Amino acid sequence: MDSSNSTKETGDIPIPVTSSKSSKAAPPPVVAAKAKSTTKQPLVSGWKRGLGIIDFILRICAIAAALAAATAMGTTSQQLPFFTQFFQFKADYNDLPAFTFFVIANAMAGAYLVLSLPFSILCIVRPHILGARLMLLVFDTVAVPLVTAAASAAASIVYLAHNGNSDANWVAICRQFNDFCQRVSGAVVASFITALLFVVLVAVSAVALRQK
Amino acid sequence: MDSSNSTKETGDIPIPVTSSKSSKAAPPPVVAAKAKSTTKQPLVSGWKRGLGIIDFILRICAIAAALAAATAMGTTSQQLPFFTQFFQFKADYNDLPAFTFFVIANAMAGAYLVLSLPFSILCIVRPHILGARLMLLVFDTVAVPLVTAAASAAASIVYLAHNGNSDANWVAICRQFNDFCQRVSGAVVASFITALLFVVLVAVSAVALRQK
Repeated sequence: MDSSNSTKETGDIPIPVTSSKSSKAAPPPVVAAKAKSTTKQPLVSGWKRGLGIIDFILRICAIAAALAAATAMGTTSQQLPFFTQFFQFKADYNDLPAFTFFVIANAMAGAYLVLSLPFSILCIVRPHILGARLMLLVFDTVAVPLVTAAASAAASIVYLAHNGNSDANWVAICRQFNDFCQRVSGAVVASFITALLFVVLVAVSAVALRQK
Repeated sequence: MDSSNSTKETGDIPIPVTSSKSSKAAPPPVVAAKAKSTTKQPLVSGWKRGLGIIDFILRICAIAAALAAATAMGTTSQQLPFFTQFFQFKADYNDLPAFTFFVIANAMAGAYLVLSLPFSILCIVRPHILGARLMLLVFDTVAVPLVTAAASAAASIVYLAHNGNSDANWVAICRQFNDFCQRVSGAVVASFITALLFVVLVAVSAVALRQK
């Protein structure tokens, strides 16, 4: 349409002027955009790569915390040195369903974190792939309440084991099973640290997604 | 404008032709963009408004669930009809720290939800304000682990009250405090429903933010 318009006007001189003008007017924005992208892209990319590396390190820490929590709770069992004719006093994580849930949830979180490492590496190598980052964000967000629920359920039982409850006539079993209680308390703390690391991971992913 | 152009072209003067050309070349993209926006804007806006209304309804439901959980737990106390000379058997939420935390966390969630209602309405009235939506998303995300932690801590105690634990020599107090246990169990269920509603609210906000 444009060319036909100019050919019609050819009766007089202006064609070369208009064509040169139009060719002159069109390119500058493109050139400007290109120059802009070439100056800004590496900066954004490097910044995103830095976030990816932070994400990776946090993930390693979270794996350590989650697996420490699961194994500390799972492997602890204390047998008291005295026993009656019918009964041997033994404390185990299997005795309390809250502790069983704790072990399962923390093991799941640890397994997910191990499986998420390749995607985290992918986000470092190719910072512009948003799909992997978004997937990590969603799963991390799901993991936060899971780990928090496990930790708080175990914490309420641990508190009860330490202090007992006179109203419900529940004795403080930690007086007998002191070693067991200490390891279990450590596991609960490790689990809360895992939950905190997940929250930080969510924040990191959100920031990385924000800057497109 | 078109008519003026044609009249000028008949005059055979080149300069106005180029100026008319540039004025002709410039507007079309703007007009096209305007036409596009006018056809697409109401659709996106209506869709966002629908999401906002869903958000508002979910928030009302969550307020009901959170306050029901807090009040059911907070107001329940059962006194057994028999008592000894020194002791009166009474069950109260104050007796167990997990239940106290439950009441506080659910009351906080309820209060936050009430305070968030104006912002939810703002998101219905002005669907394109992203700040309010983002703020709701962040606070909802924080509320999910809070409510989940409270619910699961209370749930582990309620389970213990229902079933007891023979290994730790903790008796099932629900045999005596049956009424108390039933109301407390209801409160825990309501709290888990609140947590679920928060998760749905987060998803709704995320979808609303995704479509810019």
